[in-house]
Amino acid sequence: MSSTAGQVIRCRAAVAWEAGKPLVIEEVEVAPPQTNEVRVKILFTSLCHTDVYFWEAKGQNPLFPRIYGHEAGGIVESVGEGVTDLKPGDQVLPVFTGECKECAHCKSEESNMCDLLRINTDRGVMLNDGKSRFSINGKPIYHFVGTSTFSEYTVIHVGCLAKINPLAPLDKVCVLSCGISTGLGATLNVAKPAKGSTVAVFGLGAVGLAAAEGARIAGASRIIGVDLNSSRFEEAKKFGATEFVNPKDYNKPVQEVIAEMTNGGVDRSVECTGHIDAMISAFECVHDGWGVAVLVGVPHKDAVFKTHPMNLLNERTLKGTFFGNYKPRSDLPSVVEKYMSKELEVEKFITHTVPFSEINKAFEYMLRGEGLRCIIRMEE
Amino acid sequence: MSSTAGQVIRCRAAVAWEAGKPLVIEEVEVAPPQTNEVRVKILFTSLCHTDVYFWEAKGQNPLFPRIYGHEAGGIVESVGEGVTDLKPGDQVLPVFTGECKECAHCKSEESNMCDLLRINTDRGVMLNDGKSRFSINGKPIYHFVGTSTFSEYTVIHVGCLAKINPLAPLDKVCVLSCGISTGLGATLNVAKPAKGSTVAVFGLGAVGLAAAEGARIAGASRIIGVDLNSSRFEEAKKFGATEFVNPKDYNKPVQEVIAEMTNGGVDRSVECTGHIDAMISAFECVHDGWGVAVLVGVPHKDAVFKTHPMNLLNERTLKGTFFGNYKPRSDLPSVVEKYMSKELEVEKFITHTVPFSEINKAFEYMLRGEGLRCIIRMEE
Repeated sequence: MSSTAGQVIRCRAAVAWEAGKPLVIEEVEVAPPQTNEVRVKILFTSLCHTDVYFWEAKGQNPLFPRIYGHEAGGIVESVGEGVTDLKPGDQVLPVFTGECKECAHCKSEESNMCDLLRINTDRGVMLNDGKSRFSINGKPIYHFVGTSTFSEYTVIHVGCLAKINPLAPLDKVCVLSCGISTGLGATLNVAKPAKGSTVAVFGLGAVGLAAAEGARIAGASRIIGVDLNSSRFEEAKKFGATEFVNPKDYNKPVQEVIAEMTNGGVDRSVECTGHIDAMISAFECVHDGWGVAVLVGVPHKDAVFKTHPMNLLNERTLKGTFFGNYKPRSDLPSVVEKYMSKELEVEKFITHTVPFSEINKAFEYMLRGEGLRCIIRMEE
Repeated sequence: MSSTAGQVIRCRAAVAWEAGKPLVIEEVEVAPPQTNEVRVKILFTSLCHTDVYFWEAKGQNPLFPRIYGHEAGGIVESVGEGVTDLKPGDQVLPVFTGECKECAHCKSEESNMCDLLRINTDRGVMLNDGKSRFSINGKPIYHFVGTSTFSEYTVIHVGCLAKINPLAPLDKVCVLSCGISTGLGATLNVAKPAKGSTVAVFGLGAVGLAAAEGARIAGASRIIGVDLNSSRFEEAKKFGATEFVNPKDYNKPVQEVIAEMTNGGVDRSVECTGHIDAMISAFECVHDGWGVAVLVGVPHKDAVFKTHPMNLLNERTLKGTFFGNYKPRSDLPSVVEKYMSKELEVEKFITHTVPFSEINKAFEYMLRGEGLRCIIRMEE
């Protein structure tokens, strides 16, 4: 047992006091973990669009003050009652969605949408008692998606922690706890391109590039990147993209452009923008007879997916995925192993690093669309 | 070699002279088969909605005079040049769509939409020379979907003939050459329900009942039949249906009714009506995380499939199928074997039998919505 087990820990956390305002590094109190909870010492965290989206709080329920952060790697400091899978010292990746191993989804081989621990962006407290484990002078600070990794210590439900190889470098594999696995799994677990096949990837941000990386790993012969920003095309080559299409360069729908390039359509497509037009194009650009389109990007709440049903009847498949269909606890360790065996190249995604005290710089990079992932080092 | 090989055969055929007018039994000349063609003596044929649809010719290109018919069983009379797979005396099922074994679709394990021989309802002639093999006093009579089985003899491309077990009773297995296999394959090959799973079938006509039969064979624990006509519910029990929903009986969308009946949705659904609202309901009634909806019914050409993309992102799958994803030559013999081994019960689909001279009665039964399949015996 660590000497801090059972004690309140005082440590630094980056607190969002208001929507869209710079985070403030504060000293916070982190209560000990309760039943089925684990207190984790975060060593590295990175910034994902979802943090920024909820921090901006345009349209969603604002919940402040709050500690954001969900892509991270850390070490178990102490565990609450009932936790048997993890012990102090274990290396873990926190995940924004969980795996209780008991519900119908966890028992299904096909789903990772745990009934108990599925992502909940509105809840700012722990499930066990409906309270926060963070406070400043007794005033609670809300959690974010059950992870709140922008803190030196955080408390997480055991079902939202993947125990990984103790030799894995956390400053690299921390990015696997959200976006990269989402894109990678969309290709490897859902689209499942055969070796030699053709794959189109819509949106060349971090998630889309991870989808391309999945296609590269699967041995796709052509990987067509689609993005409205042509400056992303050079970068995408590192992730296996062999060709590029900017829909703005054509006077016809991009699905027609791709069908012409590929003798009728690609074998697989992966949509990572969340724009409804791109979703429809991604579906309609796959080949009849065997094409599979996988939707990853989350659309506007009023968006409507529309297509002529003959596009389906001609033996196309349309699927959506959540977190690349990875079950956090069962499957994420194997993604880390893909990195350890040099099959998956994670370094390409890491374009910036800042110390925790400069966490707001990471927000600035993302808001400017600069780079892919910025690693935030908790130790200065 | 039969004594008729290489000769024109004069025989009886039911000719449609005009849209919607009763067929007329005429003596026709049937030319010998050319390269890659086979002349088949039809013993039994049955009537399918598709025959009636194109005979009514409301909206489609009318092509008359024409010999309809595509669900049938027969015996090879003679073969043209280049035909090595079949010989006189073989038992065959003609199929409205083919398998050339050479194109990208035929070479794909996933597709049965042969580039060369895919269904073509507008073409009334043979591929080889662009001409008909049928004539009356020198005047050509058009073919229908490459089969024209409402004739004692017909000429068919070798790629549209499945060679089946010589012991199979053609008066039963003839119905497997179209609708029954379409519904059965939609469930067994595409929806693939696991043993013990829940399946909803939309539309309880012959194709839908075949989809239910597939679910019964797969060992589904609950098979929910959905139809606007409650009189079909009793019949559907024979095909494994365990529960029934008539959307007219509820004030809310049928997908909500089914979700309530099944704790969130069925594991699989199969849509066999072709009505766009039913297609959308069939998709939205499957469970998130693992649900798969399969579309079979062909919609109106202006229909638009609409859904909220979150229904997809929550890990539902939407697929379409054509002829139950069976490759006619490669796979249909195994469907006949399912009947021979008593796994598949074909007799339940056969509700009427008429001699060839009374073929118009079969049309009347179908137009009145009476029964499922009417077998037409070519020999009086």
